[in-house]
Amino acid sequence: MKVLIIGGGGLIGQKLAKSLAGRGTLRGQPISELVLADVIDATTVDAPFAVTTKTCDISDPASVATIIDESTDVIYLLAAVVSAHAEEDFDFGYKINVDGTRNVLERCRTLGTKPVVVFTSSIAVFGGEVPQPFTDDSALNPQISYGVQKAIGEMLLNDYTRKGFVQGRGFRLPTISVRPGKPNRAASGFMSSIFREPLQGLPANCPVDRDFPHFYLSPRKCVENLIKGAELDQADLGPRPSMTMPGRVWTIGQMIDAMTAVAGPEPAKLITWNPQPEIEHILDGWRMDIRPEKAAKLGLTADDSFEDNIRIFLEDDIDA
Amino acid sequence: MKVLIIGGGGLIGQKLAKSLAGRGTLRGQPISELVLADVIDATTVDAPFAVTTKTCDISDPASVATIIDESTDVIYLLAAVVSAHAEEDFDFGYKINVDGTRNVLERCRTLGTKPVVVFTSSIAVFGGEVPQPFTDDSALNPQISYGVQKAIGEMLLNDYTRKGFVQGRGFRLPTISVRPGKPNRAASGFMSSIFREPLQGLPANCPVDRDFPHFYLSPRKCVENLIKGAELDQADLGPRPSMTMPGRVWTIGQMIDAMTAVAGPEPAKLITWNPQPEIEHILDGWRMDIRPEKAAKLGLTADDSFEDNIRIFLEDDIDA
Ligand SMILES: NC(=O)c1ccc[n+]([C@@H]2O[C@H](COP(=O)([O-])OP(=O)(O)OC[C@H]3O[C@@H](n4cnc5c(N)ncnc54)[C@H](O)[C@@H]3O)[C@@H](O)[C@H]2O)c1
Ligand SMILES: NC(=O)c1ccc[n+]([C@@H]2O[C@H](COP(=O)([O-])OP(=O)(O)OC[C@H]3O[C@@H](n4cnc5c(N)ncnc54)[C@H](O)[C@@H]3O)[C@@H](O)[C@H]2O)c1
Repeated sequence: MKVLIIGGGGLIGQKLAKSLAGRGTLRGQPISELVLADVIDATTVDAPFAVTTKTCDISDPASVATIIDESTDVIYLLAAVVSAHAEEDFDFGYKINVDGTRNVLERCRTLGTKPVVVFTSSIAVFGGEVPQPFTDDSALNPQISYGVQKAIGEMLLNDYTRKGFVQGRGFRLPTISVRPGKPNRAASGFMSSIFREPLQGLPANCPVDRDFPHFYLSPRKCVENLIKGAELDQADLGPRPSMTMPGRVWTIGQMIDAMTAVAGPEPAKLITWNPQPEIEHILDGWRMDIRPEKAAKLGLTADDSFEDNIRIFLEDDIDA
Repeated sequence: MKVLIIGGGGLIGQKLAKSLAGRGTLRGQPISELVLADVIDATTVDAPFAVTTKTCDISDPASVATIIDESTDVIYLLAAVVSAHAEEDFDFGYKINVDGTRNVLERCRTLGTKPVVVFTSSIAVFGGEVPQPFTDDSALNPQISYGVQKAIGEMLLNDYTRKGFVQGRGFRLPTISVRPGKPNRAASGFMSSIFREPLQGLPANCPVDRDFPHFYLSPRKCVENLIKGAELDQADLGPRPSMTMPGRVWTIGQMIDAMTAVAGPEPAKLITWNPQPEIEHILDGWRMDIRPEKAAKLGLTADDSFEDNIRIFLEDDIDA
């Protein structure tokens, strides 16, 4: 079982790699090799099997050919230009998120080996005039280019799967919180930084009110779901293998209260409350009554409470 | 007012050109020039304004640049590889229907002139596991590559419109019947030929039962709707400017009875009833409880009866 993580140097890629290293198996088989491919130098992980890091740019088909070969069984396609970045640089977003995704699928089609491809879409595909709740049967009506690019990625994945070129499964990730490390250029960045920074004694800004609701998942649960996602039988996925990954809706206020419950009253005092005009129009387009019914039926799960997310962050990212 | 029809040599392009010639105006302004661009040599039309025909292949950006310039006010993007053809030739379908559409939108973006772009999608975007009725808020779940390519075209159109690069409006066309002329490579071809051929004394084959339902529109109504579609105010289109064009559901039996009512019993006797395995899987994926509510609210309309479609065919295509 050879596993490839494209975007393996990113937050989820790294956590997924560590989790696979801990398990040693995927789809009931021992993992023989793990390749971490990224446009940046991915940090390697300790594992009971071979781990290779490779530099690659998915927007270049020749570069994609160097990371996917006949022996690649499972591909996690996590590489992406995230929301605020794609909104700012229209060409770059389409180049990586659309052309890059197509290059990966085309490489699989050319090889004819029908690998499992796990694609990470986003809840940014929902919005606009489509009424809530957003179920797996709701029209995708993204209000940012990143969401459009993810919706196109889903369409491509579904078609390449239907045609038998890959065994695709796509998951619309909730916003991952608490996200460790440095902020990336996602508009949702503050939804992690208002916990991450204060829990380490640093200030952070929140640009929305306490009653702003959003749909969240901890990185640990996300990785669990991505592993389950790879293990699903294609037949169980039906004619639309892209779906929403389970998550839960919390308001900023509930989340801060959860932080206070777990870590005491000091962290919350480090939060400032100033609007950020450059992301306001992105946040305005987000509505959050999302029902991830299909994935839940397939066995994917959400966190039980935001206290859990805070504890998971402290255990996995601060204590470690 | 300079109007460009890309795919202007095709069935709808030609009828639209004639209709524009008859009106002389669009969006309340006199038409000064009409350009018919196509990969084939488009037949010109008589008009009270200049009509130019141009050869172009939308899959080539340089070719697209020769047909869209600063003075192009309204663009009809009708060029496409149709259903059975796109299903057979995967690369060609993506090349024309996805890359070609993107080339047209990119050209508009580069010019910065924000033309009106009327895009023709298809009801082939609906299907799969998504429950009926299919409203404008239903998930697109195409079960053929042509439908996927149209769904991607809609996504692109919506995003380029939201960004202010074009004034886009997309319409999912019902199956056009009765379609005159030679059959094209659409899987729905028989839905016209079983009327077109018998009404002219020729035999035709029907590969489905009398009770097979489908969603139809006459070419004349389609052209009327495309003209209204170009005239809509962008503000009225909302954050999802792609929608289903009105049509009506009839069974093959009802349609044949309508032909008999208009033209007597002889034509129906020329129909043979043999299955066609090569299109069976395409037809299986089509379900037809489609509700074109948004377009209806905007003033687009369907035929009143299939007798009308038969009469329209006789008037517009046989008598003429
Ligand atoms: N974290 C979230 O809240 C969230 C929410 C919804 C969806 N997602 C999606 O999940 C996936 C992983 O997210 P993440 O949080 O780990 O993001 P991340 O930004 O931490 O990681 C993405 C990785 O992709 C790499 N990459 C970018 N362009 C590349 C290219 N051209 N070729 C190869 N690699 C390239 C980056 O260098 C980065 O290491 C992404 O597809 C993202 O859109 C994440
Ligand atoms: N007629 C229908 O039942 C129906 C139903 C749903 C959607 N549509 C859509 O409506 C549009 C028009 O349909 P139609 O019935 O007139 O089809 P058609 O096949 O008669 O016309 C399409 C025209 O596009 C031209 N074309 C193809 N590739 C091209 C390229 N690379 N560059 C330039 N021109 C190219 C063809 O030469 C043809 O003249 C298409 O987009 C079609 O997908 C039609």
